[in-house]
Amino acid sequence: MKLQTISCPGEFGLINLIKKTFSNITKDKNIIVDIGDDCFCFKSGKDYIYITKDMLVEDVHFKTSWTSPYELGKKAIEVNISDLAAMGSVIPKYIFIGLGAPANTPEDFVKNLLKGIQQACNKYNIALSGGDTVKADKIIISVTALGISKNKPITRTGAQIGDLIGVTNCFGDSGAGVYLLNKYGIKHKYTKHERALIKAQNSPIARLNEACNLSHYLTSLIDASDGLFVSLNLLIQGFSKGANINIEQVPISKNLKAVFNNNQQILKFALFGAEDYQLVFTVPKLKEKIVKKLVPSITYIGKITTGTKVKYFYNGKKQKIKYCGFKHF
Amino acid sequence: MKLQTISCPGEFGLINLIKKTFSNITKDKNIIVDIGDDCFCFKSGKDYIYITKDMLVEDVHFKTSWTSPYELGKKAIEVNISDLAAMGSVIPKYIFIGLGAPANTPEDFVKNLLKGIQQACNKYNIALSGGDTVKADKIIISVTALGISKNKPITRTGAQIGDLIGVTNCFGDSGAGVYLLNKYGIKHKYTKHERALIKAQNSPIARLNEACNLSHYLTSLIDASDGLFVSLNLLIQGFSKGANINIEQVPISKNLKAVFNNNQQILKFALFGAEDYQLVFTVPKLKEKIVKKLVPSITYIGKITTGTKVKYFYNGKKQKIKYCGFKHF
Repeated sequence: MKLQTISCPGEFGLINLIKKTFSNITKDKNIIVDIGDDCFCFKSGKDYIYITKDMLVEDVHFKTSWTSPYELGKKAIEVNISDLAAMGSVIPKYIFIGLGAPANTPEDFVKNLLKGIQQACNKYNIALSGGDTVKADKIIISVTALGISKNKPITRTGAQIGDLIGVTNCFGDSGAGVYLLNKYGIKHKYTKHERALIKAQNSPIARLNEACNLSHYLTSLIDASDGLFVSLNLLIQGFSKGANINIEQVPISKNLKAVFNNNQQILKFALFGAEDYQLVFTVPKLKEKIVKKLVPSITYIGKITTGTKVKYFYNGKKQKIKYCGFKHF
Repeated sequence: MKLQTISCPGEFGLINLIKKTFSNITKDKNIIVDIGDDCFCFKSGKDYIYITKDMLVEDVHFKTSWTSPYELGKKAIEVNISDLAAMGSVIPKYIFIGLGAPANTPEDFVKNLLKGIQQACNKYNIALSGGDTVKADKIIISVTALGISKNKPITRTGAQIGDLIGVTNCFGDSGAGVYLLNKYGIKHKYTKHERALIKAQNSPIARLNEACNLSHYLTSLIDASDGLFVSLNLLIQGFSKGANINIEQVPISKNLKAVFNNNQQILKFALFGAEDYQLVFTVPKLKEKIVKKLVPSITYIGKITTGTKVKYFYNGKKQKIKYCGFKHF
């Protein structure tokens, strides 16, 4: 008899198992957004309180040979702020850190990690508010972030048929950065453009300003932590709607174009490369122009349709695209 | 040149480094209890919101050969509820779980772990509200718990000179359970009393009811997750006060007495054995009787004095006692 392991249901199967186990335990009327979105949200008096939790594990999410402890500290905060931004206009307030580390971790590593965390906390005016330290075989950084807002959340599920699908900035840089690091290592003599791609991987920036500026106009919102392809699937999940995406409109950076000249490869990074931490959102057609005016760096890449699938088109021609990104289990 | 590692400053040194790095970043008037207590607490409208975060790592906090996944799930919740209880009368509301696991983890392990978590969530009427799953070399369970109260926190630092020091239930069982498991393994044929000690280690119970019943009368409060000795030191830390402890009054269970007949060893478990998750608190002398009447299972073991140290007495005779418990780094 073959023993079934968690690599079989996979990460999303595992998350579904968790959701199934825990559905309907409590009926708490203050819960506004339950498990399954970028953040959990509950109402406290007049405030909406947002909480997210992300865990970074050495050799899964980062390699200490690729990322400096300072960059790692900053990144641990930015990726959690990205989850808060994915709920709309949220003010980050408090951060809780769980740090696992082997006993032989150099003290300087921890000091520089803390400096990176501090730098990001200063940037967002967040207070480090708690956490604990434990011995572990590898570096583990578990971050819980709490944000507060007077505004209702923008969930993943609010898109209406006919809404435009927009994204912030560019896609694929971070995934291409990982590709380069995997292929050549950190000590390779990289070009300016290549270094920019590696920086996108090591020093991502949460799109909180964009989320705050746009939130009033958005019908749904998600961050692209697991890649654009996954985010688009999540935006239509569980509802009778689909999406048409014009792949040629997906914004690609000058750096990515400068380093790779194979269009297929570039699009693979853009669709499946994770950790770009851009926002993916929907906007009613009537708000198309005001949104673009408010944040000129956004790009519309498609629209919400009837149906139940995300369909991809390249210059009008339908494309068959299958998931080929990273799987946790 | 010898490279300094984090095993040198140790866990509390590391926590102090974190505190030092992050002091005075923000001046948020809503922060009621900052980093360094059992929970962080902030004010939201009329509510006090309490947050704690604890990480359990395989082979550091538990062994899968010693603890069933079901027990582990329950314990992960109980130890976080214990932190909420250590702030007084707090209602646990939301739990966030980060689960790290190797890809070859049996699905049944995860299912039973979730059942244990669910069981504890049901007990406290908590909603599992989020989290994530990641691939890791070992099982890691990172829990963030959020509780709400109309009441101000009872911190570690409110004790006044002359206050009595009280504790809930008994000390040493959990540490003795670990001792047995280390010595004989899980398959050994244990006596009823020995099994009770192992159960104390694998299935601790947070003293939330006691905290809720007593909170009105307490001047300071902490849970004894790292052992009684450590908790007592933390209760007087940073302030001009000391404590006199009558060791012979520290409550010891029938099970512990039945398994070990060496009084020295029993007291070592009681003072240094971690994970009893009992409450340690101070009470004004005037409230001594009402507190004992409200929760008869409490015991007074000493009092707050002038000075700056915890002094130990055995039948009136001063004892020299040095820390010999578990160190993370």
